[in-house]
Amino acid sequence: MENFTFYAPTLFAFGDGEERRTGKLVQQFGGTKALLVSGGGSVKRNGAYDAVTASLNAAGVPFAEISGIQANPRSGKVYEGIELCRKEGVDFLLALGGGSVIDTAKAIAMGTGYNGDFWDFFSGKSPITDVLSVGVVLTIAAAGSEGSDSCVITLEEGNLKWGCPKSDLIRPKFAVLDPRFTCSLPPYQTASGATDMFAHICERYFTNTADVEVTDRLCEALMKTIVSAAPKALENPGDYAARADLMWAGMLAHNNSCGVGRVQDWASHQIEHELSAFYDCAHGAGLAVVMPAWMEYVLPHDVNRFAQFAVRVWGCDMDYVHPEITAKDGIARFRAFLKSIGMPATLSEVGAKAADIPAMTAHRAEKPSAFPFGNFVKIGPEEMTAILHLAE
Amino acid sequence: MENFTFYAPTLFAFGDGEERRTGKLVQQFGGTKALLVSGGGSVKRNGAYDAVTASLNAAGVPFAEISGIQANPRSGKVYEGIELCRKEGVDFLLALGGGSVIDTAKAIAMGTGYNGDFWDFFSGKSPITDVLSVGVVLTIAAAGSEGSDSCVITLEEGNLKWGCPKSDLIRPKFAVLDPRFTCSLPPYQTASGATDMFAHICERYFTNTADVEVTDRLCEALMKTIVSAAPKALENPGDYAARADLMWAGMLAHNNSCGVGRVQDWASHQIEHELSAFYDCAHGAGLAVVMPAWMEYVLPHDVNRFAQFAVRVWGCDMDYVHPEITAKDGIARFRAFLKSIGMPATLSEVGAKAADIPAMTAHRAEKPSAFPFGNFVKIGPEEMTAILHLAE
Repeated sequence: MENFTFYAPTLFAFGDGEERRTGKLVQQFGGTKALLVSGGGSVKRNGAYDAVTASLNAAGVPFAEISGIQANPRSGKVYEGIELCRKEGVDFLLALGGGSVIDTAKAIAMGTGYNGDFWDFFSGKSPITDVLSVGVVLTIAAAGSEGSDSCVITLEEGNLKWGCPKSDLIRPKFAVLDPRFTCSLPPYQTASGATDMFAHICERYFTNTADVEVTDRLCEALMKTIVSAAPKALENPGDYAARADLMWAGMLAHNNSCGVGRVQDWASHQIEHELSAFYDCAHGAGLAVVMPAWMEYVLPHDVNRFAQFAVRVWGCDMDYVHPEITAKDGIARFRAFLKSIGMPATLSEVGAKAADIPAMTAHRAEKPSAFPFGNFVKIGPEEMTAILHLAE
Repeated sequence: MENFTFYAPTLFAFGDGEERRTGKLVQQFGGTKALLVSGGGSVKRNGAYDAVTASLNAAGVPFAEISGIQANPRSGKVYEGIELCRKEGVDFLLALGGGSVIDTAKAIAMGTGYNGDFWDFFSGKSPITDVLSVGVVLTIAAAGSEGSDSCVITLEEGNLKWGCPKSDLIRPKFAVLDPRFTCSLPPYQTASGATDMFAHICERYFTNTADVEVTDRLCEALMKTIVSAAPKALENPGDYAARADLMWAGMLAHNNSCGVGRVQDWASHQIEHELSAFYDCAHGAGLAVVMPAWMEYVLPHDVNRFAQFAVRVWGCDMDYVHPEITAKDGIARFRAFLKSIGMPATLSEVGAKAADIPAMTAHRAEKPSAFPFGNFVKIGPEEMTAILHLAE
């Protein structure tokens, strides 16, 4: 096991009706005036907006508002939010929504007190030091941003979908997780969320660090939970127990409690970020296309690890004579699972074109963390091209 | 899943050599003068004491010292530590050791600023409000107190081994976990530690709360890790990977990340506290005697849950016609595991006498949380008596 520091001081208020605590939680963590950040109309339709604003009003917390944050959140709303925070004297960001809304709130929190362009944190020009506090009321189980130290924004100029460096300063102070709000999600969004959290675990699971059984087992526990709960939530959208399992698993998948002590991979996310930057597809759907292709490409690097994945997560019988058969069977079952929950399998299903692969690869090279990326197997332009062709 | 609040803001510095960060960590969390709390001579023999005091000196953190804390920590050292903190103007408790040392530090932290007897917190006479900060350098993987909100002390007058009410105020601010320090533990202490952490998971696992798959799976992941790692650490005490797995599993077993959203049991701990109060046996050894007896006693209450334990943790084949055969097989394998790592199986092996059972039961009745205890099955005096007789 590698040395590590784990520090995840987010307070989680989990369960039906917990959003009624929001106003008091903002106060508990020092907020005197909030910016309420939200997406489209779903939080108004499912009651989350009314419950949260009522709670803020009951606690006497004044707030300004910014809404209309969309999937694959863009820099325009970040600049707008920063201006609003400065004008209104906001000292607390309250995100009401899923990963895009939370990441926008995190970026606004970084930028408000900074005398420069918030993108400097993403381009590596400036370190993250002075950040407003962020709280979350989560309405989509997927990204895990409610408990994470990371944030991904697309800079409109240049269409750059980049993450900022990981920082404990942007971990939310609190996160309210009420599974009830996720019961009204459309099936495609439920399935994309499940795929996103599964991918967050895979990025940690496929490692070259030997002898990390405790985190291997924790990863497998979360993957099995997702594989069991996602179909239940799709079959019966109001299944509270399945929604609750997905919501807690989604947080644990990305707050790094199952990823400590090991070198993580993150190649599939890097490739997917180009897909969603180019075609604005759902992040989870993009991952559903990329991950199995990445697995097939890297399988020869560590057949036994893929066999372990197959046996422990997918219940495959181990073929001790031909472990590669078991390993491939695990990937096949992963593909079948993704298909069963309605996820795309090919580039064309997310609107992507093989002809754009050179452009995506070239675009990826603009990131501060240039090629090669990934740690399980190093991915250069050639490997990225090969993986995307496997996803055709 | 039940509603819950989870807030575990402890910073974990994990790995070989991380104790060199101790002085800076004390400062990071506001300490200007520390009380270094330790046990016997083992921390001097294994290098932990020298490394930690060197780190404090290098950071310029002055410190007073109290040592000689023993297993099943007693109130005398708590009173002594409180006096010392007041006299020396200490504002930070630094525990160097295992659960007994950490719990003593927590109790001193509660009592120093309180104008009364620290036992008032344990007897329920006063709520916990004003607590000095606690940091930990862990040298025994067992109790999980390094990440927990709980603390158990024995009041010498009356020999009362009681826990204080759970409070996030007593969670350590940081915990340094260097598996290397545990490599010099004697086999009996290694095995007692593994049993203690396994028991912490069982207390959460055996629940009447339905549909909590995510935490079931996480509990099973940790139990399987312990079952795999403990024999390796006994076979080869210097096996760093096995020691690291045990150390992180022991923390996770008790910081409640795998216990949220479900009604927990804790009956075995209640019974064991009487055993160790009466006979001063190692807590883990006492649990090795009590837990299987408790399991056999409560098995009929939920055969399927014990079958799940048998199949998922112990790899038993499910007998779908006679699930109780599978359930019993799981308990038998648990017994065999405990025996294989050198743990006692009967009262007499920890020096206990069946003739004392009425006295232990009467003594248990003095606690503020009187009979019945336990939530999976309610345990009154009669049930406690029966379980102890099963352990004869």
